[in-house]
Amino acid sequence: MIETALLVVIVICVIALALAALLARNLLSQDEGTPKMREVSDAIKVGAEAFIKRQYSTIAIIAIVLAIVIFAVYYFTGQQSLAVYTAFAYIVGATCSAVAGVVAMSIAVRTNIRTAAAAQHSDGKALDFSFRGGAISGLIITSMSLLGVSLTYIALGANPQTTPFVIVGFGFGASFVALFAQLGGGIYTKAADVGADLVGKVEAGIPEDDVRNPATIADLVGDNVGDCAGRGADLFESTAAENIGAMILGVALFPVFGVNGILFPIVMCALGLLASMIGILSVKGKDGADPMDSMNRGYYITAIISAVFLFFGVRWLLGSATGWMYFFYAGLVGIALSVCFLLVTLYYTDHHYPPVKKIADASETGAATNIITGFSVGLETTAIPAILIGLSLLISYWCGTMSGIPSGGLYGTAVATVGMLMVCAYVLAMDTFGPIADNAGGIVEMSEAPEDVRKRMDKLDAAGNTTKALTKGYAIGSASLAVFLLFNAYMADIAKLTNKVFDVVNLADVHVFVGALLGAMLVFLFASFAIRAVSKTAQSVIEAVRIQFKNPAIMAGTQKPDYAAVIDITTQGALKNMVIPGILVIGFPIIIGVTMKYQALAGFLMVATITGILLALILNNSGGAWDNAKKFIESGAHGGKGSEAHKAAVIGDTLGDPFKDTAGPSLHVLIKLLATLTLVLAPLFI
Amino acid sequence: MIETALLVVIVICVIALALAALLARNLLSQDEGTPKMREVSDAIKVGAEAFIKRQYSTIAIIAIVLAIVIFAVYYFTGQQSLAVYTAFAYIVGATCSAVAGVVAMSIAVRTNIRTAAAAQHSDGKALDFSFRGGAISGLIITSMSLLGVSLTYIALGANPQTTPFVIVGFGFGASFVALFAQLGGGIYTKAADVGADLVGKVEAGIPEDDVRNPATIADLVGDNVGDCAGRGADLFESTAAENIGAMILGVALFPVFGVNGILFPIVMCALGLLASMIGILSVKGKDGADPMDSMNRGYYITAIISAVFLFFGVRWLLGSATGWMYFFYAGLVGIALSVCFLLVTLYYTDHHYPPVKKIADASETGAATNIITGFSVGLETTAIPAILIGLSLLISYWCGTMSGIPSGGLYGTAVATVGMLMVCAYVLAMDTFGPIADNAGGIVEMSEAPEDVRKRMDKLDAAGNTTKALTKGYAIGSASLAVFLLFNAYMADIAKLTNKVFDVVNLADVHVFVGALLGAMLVFLFASFAIRAVSKTAQSVIEAVRIQFKNPAIMAGTQKPDYAAVIDITTQGALKNMVIPGILVIGFPIIIGVTMKYQALAGFLMVATITGILLALILNNSGGAWDNAKKFIESGAHGGKGSEAHKAAVIGDTLGDPFKDTAGPSLHVLIKLLATLTLVLAPLFI
Repeated sequence: MIETALLVVIVICVIALALAALLARNLLSQDEGTPKMREVSDAIKVGAEAFIKRQYSTIAIIAIVLAIVIFAVYYFTGQQSLAVYTAFAYIVGATCSAVAGVVAMSIAVRTNIRTAAAAQHSDGKALDFSFRGGAISGLIITSMSLLGVSLTYIALGANPQTTPFVIVGFGFGASFVALFAQLGGGIYTKAADVGADLVGKVEAGIPEDDVRNPATIADLVGDNVGDCAGRGADLFESTAAENIGAMILGVALFPVFGVNGILFPIVMCALGLLASMIGILSVKGKDGADPMDSMNRGYYITAIISAVFLFFGVRWLLGSATGWMYFFYAGLVGIALSVCFLLVTLYYTDHHYPPVKKIADASETGAATNIITGFSVGLETTAIPAILIGLSLLISYWCGTMSGIPSGGLYGTAVATVGMLMVCAYVLAMDTFGPIADNAGGIVEMSEAPEDVRKRMDKLDAAGNTTKALTKGYAIGSASLAVFLLFNAYMADIAKLTNKVFDVVNLADVHVFVGALLGAMLVFLFASFAIRAVSKTAQSVIEAVRIQFKNPAIMAGTQKPDYAAVIDITTQGALKNMVIPGILVIGFPIIIGVTMKYQALAGFLMVATITGILLALILNNSGGAWDNAKKFIESGAHGGKGSEAHKAAVIGDTLGDPFKDTAGPSLHVLIKLLATLTLVLAPLFI
Repeated sequence: MIETALLVVIVICVIALALAALLARNLLSQDEGTPKMREVSDAIKVGAEAFIKRQYSTIAIIAIVLAIVIFAVYYFTGQQSLAVYTAFAYIVGATCSAVAGVVAMSIAVRTNIRTAAAAQHSDGKALDFSFRGGAISGLIITSMSLLGVSLTYIALGANPQTTPFVIVGFGFGASFVALFAQLGGGIYTKAADVGADLVGKVEAGIPEDDVRNPATIADLVGDNVGDCAGRGADLFESTAAENIGAMILGVALFPVFGVNGILFPIVMCALGLLASMIGILSVKGKDGADPMDSMNRGYYITAIISAVFLFFGVRWLLGSATGWMYFFYAGLVGIALSVCFLLVTLYYTDHHYPPVKKIADASETGAATNIITGFSVGLETTAIPAILIGLSLLISYWCGTMSGIPSGGLYGTAVATVGMLMVCAYVLAMDTFGPIADNAGGIVEMSEAPEDVRKRMDKLDAAGNTTKALTKGYAIGSASLAVFLLFNAYMADIAKLTNKVFDVVNLADVHVFVGALLGAMLVFLFASFAIRAVSKTAQSVIEAVRIQFKNPAIMAGTQKPDYAAVIDITTQGALKNMVIPGILVIGFPIIIGVTMKYQALAGFLMVATITGILLALILNNSGGAWDNAKKFIESGAHGGKGSEAHKAAVIGDTLGDPFKDTAGPSLHVLIKLLATLTLVLAPLFI
């Protein structure tokens, strides 16, 4: 018999999928705009689908190799029974993660054109469409993640005390695909963007998104494969990994809460999904209004309803503890942290506040000062988030201790993580809204639509930039809480395998210290590869475009450039350059774990995570701040477009591109991948 | 009665000081060049001395406050007897560190002019003078450090089991002054440099070091106060802190080696000083030869003789252990690490190798690609050094274990650190050679000397750039080994204070984890402040110069610009902007330690150190690589001076300036300051 709690999860997921279907049907019935718009949109669709097909073929090969490795690890360490189950869970997780990416992208490429069409008449409608496109992704991905974990749990026997350890395979599969999806997509999108800008704007002196530039379609394809498909897979694996981590901690509390403590995280995420649906439906575009107002209101509605659901959820499932109210407080800490992260990110990346203004000021003395200032802002953005994460962990741990149950502290941090995750579907909607608006803007531009249509889209595009920055802040915040869970899950797993208590990772031990040093190093090295991959691939794009620009008919606009050739080169470059960093981050921890054993690997994992969180903050926020400093200048400040300050700001923005859209988001996935990897391959390290 | 070992140290130091005096007398008797040269040189001297005076006044105020705090901490935690001693040691250390900075600078400002004069006739002589100037600094600073530790040890009673814990005050005083000296000097030098370049080269279009630019003298003063005084204080405190850390570990081995194990580190450093003297005397400039050849030969001679001395030193002092040979091997690991670090740094920052070439290539597509490539090279440079440090720690630990004495592993790492430190005086000579050559070049330029003199100095200046990069690599390598010692010294200190075993820093504990997260964050935040301080102060410089440029007589060259006004503004800016980051890095760990106690502080310290090492590598090496990519282009590659590629490379170099000369070197001091701070204030954290 299935637990009531699981039934609740499944029912809510079905409702969410139904709502997504409803929204999709409505969206697909909308006007598809002028023939010119459709032409651009079709080109984007074809390019994006071609990339995804080739990308996932590459990923599939590595994934299958890894499936065999996982099977072998369990088989040859005397756990034959687990071998099949873990490999099975891994394959399911990887497949679902891939599907999540495809879903996000397919919806986006269909929504772009309808948003562009709507912008011909109304900016309110354009917001409605683009946000709903994001919402469909958010609902499908979140419910897929919850259904995936729940159904795998049932399929693997639903034994509350052992099954959570087996479904880590699911989490690892999801992280694995997400890493490559985010990395490959991130390289693609920024190589095309940087390449198009450098060869078009800088060398040939033609505007951005000019039809004559053969790299523009690749640039627009990039938004879909990087921001939509990549982020879709990323947030899919976040929800999955975090739920699994929390479930494993629940096993330790089995004597207190029974199965309820194990299912608590997924139930709460499901309730959060319900809250997100209400939030999503509350967003309503209004002509002439700031699109951020409506989306922010929706976000606060989601957060408040989540808090209410949290109260009832905690009372229902954890009510057997005398101090259960403290778990509610711990969950509130998580919800509060998600709001704080949004505000901090807004402060650092919005041009209304001093940091971006300072960068814009510094552009007056050239690119060097623009970059020095932007980089120092990026470094500074680690401070408040780190303090907030630290406080959240300490407070939620304290709450857990006050609940009165043994080792409740750790479970307190788990509840905080769950609280932060409740708003996930809504955040995902906001996140996917960004690239949709960006793409719709590109379609409007390339289809040479009238000035007022462009203006409408510009406003939406600017809001999209803000939401993209905000949701990255959320992603890194929730990852930070989650990995602390995953560490402890790893330690519980090792303890189970060795039948010895493992609750100390002694940094004063020389092996652990060296592991920690190498963990931090891996993060920097990975970022180096990710950033370099963009510049290498951009170089190929530039060369390909230069050849086409030599054809005078293309420059005169009488002959259509060969968009497909550039798409092909970008695809090849992205795929080639994602493999080495991907294999590095999988291979290196395995080498450390095999040679230096599980305690040193724990040190590796923890310090890699700390470094990864902080470096991701630096890269995401400095990139966002540079981008908005440029936009601020383009809006007329410091001499506006074409001024010396603008030229300096463009250079800063170009540097920020691979920071914020390739390396930064890939680091989010990396830190969770490391955690699930060590969990799944734990038998190798003892 | 004084131990023989201490006598050996004192005798060698006296010999070194005598040699320094001899070299100085010879140097001072040399020709001081043309009146024009003397005019420039005098202006530099006056500016540098004025800055140092004001800087040390500011530092003195903070130092006295801290002395009172230290006294109070010991007094009110019931250790009245230690209060006076520790505060006394602190004051002595701080004073010596200040003197070390002043000595380095005074020698440099006197050597510059003589090097410039020698360059009129012979580049071999110019090398001899500038290198010997560096050597005088190296000998004086190293022997002051050894004498300071030895004499303080004697003054505080020479009790081998308790005195090492008291002289940590000396180490902290040294680090404290070094931090401010390096930070203030670093801000000064780069603010003047960046400001002069931006307003002179970029805005007014006049060459570097042009007499009409009122910021040029400030720029030349900066080399002395930043690179000479700052680095002098830095290396003084390195030797002091590392020796003290090793001595504390020696206390644990007192039953095995007696006082010999405690005095071993300083004896070995003294023997290394002897080896360095031989190496220094072997350097002989030859007209037309590459200056690097001679200096490299001297370095290898020093390293080989050090290895021989190491053998005899280990046999003498640690020979009572049956496996004493293993300690010799551990020491060799340290010497080998110092050589490896030089080679790796050379690979990443010299234009003969792919990394710098790639940056120069990327300059062809503009500043954005130059910076993306340079930054990714910087991130990459963490990899090999981290692996080398990790291997050195593991191997020397293993050697220590094989020696057969209890807890010998840790002492093995101490011996490796000592091995690395043996070549310190020689490295310091190479290091100070750099800014002397740079300054002499500036004097030649500003005194409008003939073309051939300039060419001779350019060659020396290029070699100086290389040695500056190399010695930064050495500094960070030796700091990495040393801090592992200092952690363990901290733990030994806490154990002594609490009378409980303290050998576990459990990163899985939520408090330790949060401490670690905040430690890593502090490093990034500090770097942010340091970098921002440069851009703020440069802004003031630019404004001051702009006002002077409005005077047509200055631009026509008929009226001398007001150099002193710019020097004054730079001084004020540097002093103002060094205080907040300085207080931050002292105050923040105290807050963490007091609120979260000693174990969390240990996590803070260790992860701050790991992050600090890696970030320093990134900043130093990317800065060095950008600088040399620019120089490579200036030598004629990619279109040479004035080409678009050159313009892009200048922007990269400007970004690299605060990286490699302000934030990077300040991080070296920071990581040791954190270690000595926690040691000295340990009673606060229990």
